[in-house]
Amino acid sequence: MIAAMAIIECVPNISEGRRAEVVEACVGALKRVPGVRVLDHSSDASHNRSVLTVAGDAKPLKEAVLALYETALPLIDLRTHKGEHPRLGAVDVVPFVPIADVTMDGCVALAREVGAEVAARFGVPVFLYEEAASSPARRNLEDIRRGEFEGLAEKLARPEWRPDFGPGAPHPSAGASVIGARMPLIAYNINLATDRLDVAKKIAAAIRLSSGGFRFVKAMGVRVDDRNLSQVSMNLTNFEKTPIYRVFEVVKREAARYGVAVLESEIVGLVPSAALVDAAQFYLQLERFTPEQVLETKIRTLAE
Amino acid sequence: MIAAMAIIECVPNISEGRRAEVVEACVGALKRVPGVRVLDHSSDASHNRSVLTVAGDAKPLKEAVLALYETALPLIDLRTHKGEHPRLGAVDVVPFVPIADVTMDGCVALAREVGAEVAARFGVPVFLYEEAASSPARRNLEDIRRGEFEGLAEKLARPEWRPDFGPGAPHPSAGASVIGARMPLIAYNINLATDRLDVAKKIAAAIRLSSGGFRFVKAMGVRVDDRNLSQVSMNLTNFEKTPIYRVFEVVKREAARYGVAVLESEIVGLVPSAALVDAAQFYLQLERFTPEQVLETKIRTLAE
Repeated sequence: MIAAMAIIECVPNISEGRRAEVVEACVGALKRVPGVRVLDHSSDASHNRSVLTVAGDAKPLKEAVLALYETALPLIDLRTHKGEHPRLGAVDVVPFVPIADVTMDGCVALAREVGAEVAARFGVPVFLYEEAASSPARRNLEDIRRGEFEGLAEKLARPEWRPDFGPGAPHPSAGASVIGARMPLIAYNINLATDRLDVAKKIAAAIRLSSGGFRFVKAMGVRVDDRNLSQVSMNLTNFEKTPIYRVFEVVKREAARYGVAVLESEIVGLVPSAALVDAAQFYLQLERFTPEQVLETKIRTLAE
Repeated sequence: MIAAMAIIECVPNISEGRRAEVVEACVGALKRVPGVRVLDHSSDASHNRSVLTVAGDAKPLKEAVLALYETALPLIDLRTHKGEHPRLGAVDVVPFVPIADVTMDGCVALAREVGAEVAARFGVPVFLYEEAASSPARRNLEDIRRGEFEGLAEKLARPEWRPDFGPGAPHPSAGASVIGARMPLIAYNINLATDRLDVAKKIAAAIRLSSGGFRFVKAMGVRVDDRNLSQVSMNLTNFEKTPIYRVFEVVKREAARYGVAVLESEIVGLVPSAALVDAAQFYLQLERFTPEQVLETKIRTLAE
């Protein structure tokens, strides 16, 4: 049956990237919930961390995340966990991401609901972050995670770091969790028809927020050695407000300044349909166009 | 649940555009089949004809089309039917259109299956057309429909017009049906920043098949009176082989020849996601991109 529902993506980061059987158990817990799809999972042994990507409507997604805690908590002990990546808890970070037929507010509400339930059911302190943050000081993951698991007891004891849900002390083995809502992240690279790394670096500096560029662009210039070319490597953190096509056009213009052409661009991993439809709309100068004109979207929104 | 399935569009044309209760009964027959969505229906009184648009996977769609025949045949009698539009039968034309996760071959197979069943169950002679045609002489709807209902008995008696399925004589009240498979049709207009109709007409002639243009473009120049501008009005009959962006770029270039700019373009009605993703890929010079990178597509193809 053609199903009627929102598409929300959820990307839990768990503090286990070495024991394959533990990762498989966690993936299995998500997969067993009807209405949820596991889109991807990848583990990094040196980080000792895995990133799981699942999607579904709010209700099954909530159930799946709770099942993940149920499975992960007895298997992952932060007191003995070692890895290069900063972490606060066994289920370290859980962002909810609006993809289709759902608002950011809907994802914020879901993050709060899941956070409250995680605290109540498992006794894990929960911080809300990004769009779900309860104050500006808690928006950034880095600020919340500073001090890591080892400094967590002391951090939680400070009034300004009382958790949003749950006890004012760490869970003995699972630490704390950071749960929230954010826009989808698009990993986007533009390859230049030159091997000059300095050009890629200058363009990256021109377009990224930190040096005066676009609000939702992180960028760096890198060399793609096996192809003898340089690349502007980016993360686009809000494609609605800083769209792909605008970034592409500015990179093309900046490259021309150095007599360099754009060879091609590439999207690494997944991209929401809306980000590409936006680009088509821009270049085709499409007016009076609504998302419901996309046949697949119309079918999804029609379904009961 | 997120459903796992092909999306096939079906656009039955029925020979009734005046009696609202008959049209409603036909729409109702389609709607009652689980897994099928009625995307649109529109009736034309002077044509005395209605166009119904439904979508779903092959199995429910077949069931829905058979339910449509079940409902329409007792209600529509071609012996008394009058209208401006040429027609051969009560359920006149039934094209199946591949949208997502299905090939044209899949739609051809579905057309044959439905055609055989319509003939067997209702005694209606069936011609297969377009991509499902059994010979080149039967590809074009116009050729099959020439002579209309009134000339059908004589036509069917000729050896070269033996139906693909069913009896060699018309169904007394329902005539015959033309069932087949074709690519989605995109109604696409480009508005020029001029009121000069001659420019729109010259550009239309340059891009349409009939006067030397693209294989899958039908085009004419028209005036949009209430906005005081001229328009290249098109049907794109195969966006995979003649993509939107190529047509747009050529129109822009031809317009420049007359010192005229493109004001905007517009898509009328529905468009498959792939047609817009293709445009984004072209303009962003996206390489190594696969449809499974579109999050919504990945979810649909993952579902069981």
